[in-house]
Amino acid sequence: METMLASHQGQVANLERVAKLLYKTTSSRQQCWKTNKVGSNVTLINVMQIPGLNTLGISIARIDYAPLGQNPPHTHPRATEIITVLEGTLYVGFVTSNPDNKFFSKVLNKGDVFVFSVGLIHFQFNPNPYKPAVAIAALSSQNPGAITIANAVFGSKPPISDDVLAKAFQVEKGTIDWLQAQFWENNHY
Amino acid sequence: METMLASHQGQVANLERVAKLLYKTTSSRQQCWKTNKVGSNVTLINVMQIPGLNTLGISIARIDYAPLGQNPPHTHPRATEIITVLEGTLYVGFVTSNPDNKFFSKVLNKGDVFVFSVGLIHFQFNPNPYKPAVAIAALSSQNPGAITIANAVFGSKPPISDDVLAKAFQVEKGTIDWLQAQFWENNHY
Amino acid sequence: METMLASHQGQVANLERVAKLLYKTTSSRQQCWKTNKVGSNVTLINVMQIPGLNTLGISIARIDYAPLGQNPPHTHPRATEIITVLEGTLYVGFVTSNPDNKFFSKVLNKGDVFVFSVGLIHFQFNPNPYKPAVAIAALSSQNPGAITIANAVFGSKPPISDDVLAKAFQVEKGTIDWLQAQFWENNHY
Amino acid sequence: METMLASHQGQVANLERVAKLLYKTTSSRQQCWKTNKVGSNVTLINVMQIPGLNTLGISIARIDYAPLGQNPPHTHPRATEIITVLEGTLYVGFVTSNPDNKFFSKVLNKGDVFVFSVGLIHFQFNPNPYKPAVAIAALSSQNPGAITIANAVFGSKPPISDDVLAKAFQVEKGTIDWLQAQFWENNHY
Amino acid sequence: METMLASHQGQVANLERVAKLLYKTTSSRQQCWKTNKVGSNVTLINVMQIPGLNTLGISIARIDYAPLGQNPPHTHPRATEIITVLEGTLYVGFVTSNPDNKFFSKVLNKGDVFVFSVGLIHFQFNPNPYKPAVAIAALSSQNPGAITIANAVFGSKPPISDDVLAKAFQVEKGTIDWLQAQFWENNHY
Amino acid sequence: METMLASHQGQVANLERVAKLLYKTTSSRQQCWKTNKVGSNVTLINVMQIPGLNTLGISIARIDYAPLGQNPPHTHPRATEIITVLEGTLYVGFVTSNPDNKFFSKVLNKGDVFVFSVGLIHFQFNPNPYKPAVAIAALSSQNPGAITIANAVFGSKPPISDDVLAKAFQVEKGTIDWLQAQFWENNHY
Repeated sequence: METMLASHQGQVANLERVAKLLYKTTSSRQQCWKTNKVGSNVTLINVMQIPGLNTLGISIARIDYAPLGQNPPHTHPRATEIITVLEGTLYVGFVTSNPDNKFFSKVLNKGDVFVFSVGLIHFQFNPNPYKPAVAIAALSSQNPGAITIANAVFGSKPPISDDVLAKAFQVEKGTIDWLQAQFWENNHY
Repeated sequence: METMLASHQGQVANLERVAKLLYKTTSSRQQCWKTNKVGSNVTLINVMQIPGLNTLGISIARIDYAPLGQNPPHTHPRATEIITVLEGTLYVGFVTSNPDNKFFSKVLNKGDVFVFSVGLIHFQFNPNPYKPAVAIAALSSQNPGAITIANAVFGSKPPISDDVLAKAFQVEKGTIDWLQAQFWENNHY
Repeated sequence: METMLASHQGQVANLERVAKLLYKTTSSRQQCWKTNKVGSNVTLINVMQIPGLNTLGISIARIDYAPLGQNPPHTHPRATEIITVLEGTLYVGFVTSNPDNKFFSKVLNKGDVFVFSVGLIHFQFNPNPYKPAVAIAALSSQNPGAITIANAVFGSKPPISDDVLAKAFQVEKGTIDWLQAQFWENNHY
Repeated sequence: METMLASHQGQVANLERVAKLLYKTTSSRQQCWKTNKVGSNVTLINVMQIPGLNTLGISIARIDYAPLGQNPPHTHPRATEIITVLEGTLYVGFVTSNPDNKFFSKVLNKGDVFVFSVGLIHFQFNPNPYKPAVAIAALSSQNPGAITIANAVFGSKPPISDDVLAKAFQVEKGTIDWLQAQFWENNHY
Repeated sequence: METMLASHQGQVANLERVAKLLYKTTSSRQQCWKTNKVGSNVTLINVMQIPGLNTLGISIARIDYAPLGQNPPHTHPRATEIITVLEGTLYVGFVTSNPDNKFFSKVLNKGDVFVFSVGLIHFQFNPNPYKPAVAIAALSSQNPGAITIANAVFGSKPPISDDVLAKAFQVEKGTIDWLQAQFWENNHY
Repeated sequence: METMLASHQGQVANLERVAKLLYKTTSSRQQCWKTNKVGSNVTLINVMQIPGLNTLGISIARIDYAPLGQNPPHTHPRATEIITVLEGTLYVGFVTSNPDNKFFSKVLNKGDVFVFSVGLIHFQFNPNPYKPAVAIAALSSQNPGAITIANAVFGSKPPISDDVLAKAFQVEKGTIDWLQAQFWENNHY
């Protein structure tokens, strides 16, 4: 019966499932950052791991930051994010929309909570050169999506026309070509 | 400009505020549980702490559990909850709606993630007699609300008619009166 | 064509169906209450009876109350309820969420309308020892759900741990065990 | 506190108010139909009577029909309606949208439930020449609105251009002028 | 992967499709109006043409008006419309809901923008006897629906009872019968 | 009355206002592109111009493109966009979210319709070196917002830390500093 109801609204069925957010050992996490250019990795539990989350409007992620690692500028196309620091310190920021493009930034310590409104570009950076940082982020969608700006702009497959990007970013086409030739690593798993 | 827009949709303004989720020292937290009958306390960051969260559909809480402490059976009238264990072990459960009232329970270890669908009765219990536990819970509303079942039923002000409760709970009116005379402590701050 | 559109939004198709809300004869209804411990029965028309209601956000119920019968404390996890008395008198109440748990109650006469906000614990009681009462309740979901508090807490299958419930309700485990041994009857059909 | 929260989401505050749906005596209701061209009157309880209903997405109405009275073709611009017959018999119908404009109709007896999907043109007619009928309708909005088609088209203030209406309704302008000169009585109170 | 996600939320998959809004040549459009009683035609791109639009809450239409042509009084049961004039001049109007049924009208010139709120009766008329007009309308649903009032009321299949319509429109049954015998042409394609 | 209702739901009041989308003469538009680095300008009609649009979930924009002009890569944080070409030709594209970052592109001719899903990075480019292009875009929010990627990342006020951007974009800090020293012009009005 609950299953039938769920096919109508999805609220109840298949929620008796346990997902793993922090399954990595410390050493395996360190291995992640070290082989990762931006020095961070994001582990998301969403409707793909727990199908019963469908329509329920929430998901949760753990983010691990190497010393000086960052979760580079990105957006969530379908969710607002609320983040809290579990370990270490984070320098975080977001930019408002046109025409002002105001940049707001804060240093967050353990236990601090901050919000990134739906669709705005934001980042987190671990300013400590010696210690890692860890955060938990919750998102207001069962399928929030993530768009790492540099990867989507310069690392898309196939690449975006360099004519378009050269004018948009006010650089030579050669610079765009060079950027597009780099390896743009995804830090979301 | 952003402020004006916010008055239309609330997405952007006043989000440059840092709230504190884990502000308590370990010793102050311990003091909380010890003087608390159920042995847990919930610290919620919602639209009351960060007004810019309005309409954004998310909030976050930290829950501290004493050894053998519990976050007793409760509901969130306006939110689904996704929880992850940060420290220790939790035995968690929820009950489905009429007519089946099926009880699902799981033991969650560090890093495990579990979902409580909007409005369902659920609880968490720390089965370890020696060690505390800590969890982070995210909720799909900026104002999720919490209703501790025992408190709302037996500790309301003024009390619900004992005639009504005696029949509903299949006990003597004297039992209801005794229950209503207890001190029903709120563990949500 | 309408059918195809409905698969995209569900608003139009399969709504030419008549459901029966008041199909019981007076005598069959009386039989219901008399064999029913709480002295009431709820007949709900939702998306299970009229599949075309899916996504349309409404359902309707008739509630019959024996003399001194009650619709015991319960919640609707996914809907606000608006109720109107058709026959007799009802004493109704609801309790607000933590931390206040304020109890509001009213006596409703024929034609009075009252609202129970989504997810709040509420009940209706027929205070008349001689006459039945009848009400119509509308709910803001095609699948509102109903959770009878006593049944979900003490009558779940399997039972919730008596350790958890004893602490939550401030009673002896023996009392919980006794409660869990009772027959918890569902008054929703 | 609840009041503050309500200003953020409106779910809880000011809901302890009783509105009157069936306040009319039988004789005063009869007086209504008799002086009313269409032979029906609608009494709606919405957010205007119970301000705390705001954002809760539900309202309720009572409809009284004289013998041979009708609630003429109308739409609710912001709500689906679910209706149940309390007394008498109703012949009800709705028309689907372009391009099919299919007309579905049913005869509803006491206790029957029927749905009118949001925005569709529908009506109810009491086919009994001797007996009145009564129905309860619930609507999926706290402010559903009602548009009586004939009144809005031919009785608007100021009138719609008769050039436009003559072509739209395929009649002479004189016919439109005659229609616009009638008294278009509102049966919603 | 995007495809799987889309099955959960529909935002991304199958959006790489181009639909045609203005595919008609001027001469074919003229042919349309000339054989069309109301002198207009509406071409809508919605979820039927671009399935990936599902749940995205938007669609777009082009409307062509012959000299003195009109898009006759109609409603969109599931969408607000925002319209802009591309060529020519339009006299537009809408009527508010009961009890006021106020009629608001404006003359729109090239580039003017106007809004028709969800579910309200509205029309556009090209007052120029020599020149056609063209408008673009966007709608806040992937499946807005359109109900041409005259067609739904007098041209439904099967026809609505002439007893009901005669009383609702305050005319003789013979007039209703005559109206129902006309050919009610749909101008939505 | 309508005004009071609007304060509860905003659907009806203050919608009798005409906004101007195409108010610019051809020569003033040309002047726009010529002094504009990206060669395009966007004129949006949203809730700021028509306050009654609040909560109605739609807005509309006109976009003018100089020969070889572009509307550079940007997102709308709160809306899906549906676009149609009025004059000329557009090469358009969007990039899907992590981890695939697939780039989809199309050439759109007059009358073609294309969709950019909420929050995804997208652009339009006029590939014709001699002729301008014009498009109408509708958005599924009364306040969609626009974030021009290059401007938000490199032209924010104050600038984002060059340490963060250098690592995120895999370039030298000097390159970031040079980019941040450019003039980042907003093409949204």
